[in-house]
Amino acid sequence: MTDALSITDRSRLRRYHERGQFDRETVYGILDAQPMCSVGYTIDGAPFVTPTLQWRMGDHVYWHGSSASRTLRNSSSAEVCLSVAILDGFVLARSGMHHSVNSRSVTLFGMAEKVTDPEEKLTALAAFVNGLFPGRYEGLRPDTAQDLKATMVLRMPIAEGSAKLRSGGPSDEEEDYALPIWAGVVPVRMEVGAPVPDPRNLEGVAMPEHVTALSLGRAG
Amino acid sequence: MTDALSITDRSRLRRYHERGQFDRETVYGILDAQPMCSVGYTIDGAPFVTPTLQWRMGDHVYWHGSSASRTLRNSSSAEVCLSVAILDGFVLARSGMHHSVNSRSVTLFGMAEKVTDPEEKLTALAAFVNGLFPGRYEGLRPDTAQDLKATMVLRMPIAEGSAKLRSGGPSDEEEDYALPIWAGVVPVRMEVGAPVPDPRNLEGVAMPEHVTALSLGRAG
Repeated sequence: MTDALSITDRSRLRRYHERGQFDRETVYGILDAQPMCSVGYTIDGAPFVTPTLQWRMGDHVYWHGSSASRTLRNSSSAEVCLSVAILDGFVLARSGMHHSVNSRSVTLFGMAEKVTDPEEKLTALAAFVNGLFPGRYEGLRPDTAQDLKATMVLRMPIAEGSAKLRSGGPSDEEEDYALPIWAGVVPVRMEVGAPVPDPRNLEGVAMPEHVTALSLGRAG
Repeated sequence: MTDALSITDRSRLRRYHERGQFDRETVYGILDAQPMCSVGYTIDGAPFVTPTLQWRMGDHVYWHGSSASRTLRNSSSAEVCLSVAILDGFVLARSGMHHSVNSRSVTLFGMAEKVTDPEEKLTALAAFVNGLFPGRYEGLRPDTAQDLKATMVLRMPIAEGSAKLRSGGPSDEEEDYALPIWAGVVPVRMEVGAPVPDPRNLEGVAMPEHVTALSLGRAG
């Protein structure tokens, strides 16, 4: 878990000054903290970005969608760029130039591959549900062959990419610290609200503990 | 503000079943509610995604970065795909298949163009700062020629694209409603925390009201 990701010409492009980080622990921590991601791919050479959810199993990152989706089919067996970004705050400096954001982000590059083995597909989908809501998958109506057919699961080895992190206060030009301008950080974070039960839940069906286990954006 | 965005073959690809929305009011509402975005572009035919902040002025969307950034230079005068996604909640259904997320997202396509006119660049950067923190820009140390030179501002007309929205509870197979499985929605949202003043703020410099004006992810 501590080996560095490979740094290619491509991922060097994505390295932002001193902020680039490449160790797996950092990368995995960010992936595990935020399921929302953007998958970039091309269709006839033109760039496309699809927001979706990702999850990690070992050294692979997974995402999924409808088998009928042209966009998903286009990103299967193709080069993709998967990006996860967590906004932690706005950094207000004394000049416009030094305003910034505190954030944690990961960019991964690789070939997307379709998960075709039904067993592996089930395992991956269970891990997706249980990663957000521990133990939920086993209590659901089991996936049918038709469900599986309608769902495309893609994955990519976590092999090439980088993480970018910024935290802390503003970094102004030294002479600007003498100016009577308020500077600081406005933190932001994802908050999980109170669960809203479906009105069609059967009487006596209690809310399972896993429903309130969700945590987003938190490290570790 | 009510004319539909043009629907091309490309944006049709991005339309998700009945969830696609194309009116400017919807698109602008989402863009204005969430500055975080992902810009997709290509380098030598390979897909890249950069997380950054966007802001809107009229019928254009803007983003910016360091003039030294190879990634930003690569997306200037080039086709890009800009994606904004707001996660509103997790939808827990009775089968894995019907789990979903409530979200609002916008995908825009077009040619990125560099803003070269210094006046327009200043106006755009002021709008960026003031859009998040009303009136802040005028109280800052003014941008210098060097600041402007170090900053690249890109923009794209909001002309082609779509919005996708999902809200509400789970939609299960009719027979699954008879199962004793808890279903519902776990709402999530961006919360703004208490501002953290820079320890180097001068004594007597009060926190301006604009610091607490930030709101993210809210409609309108």
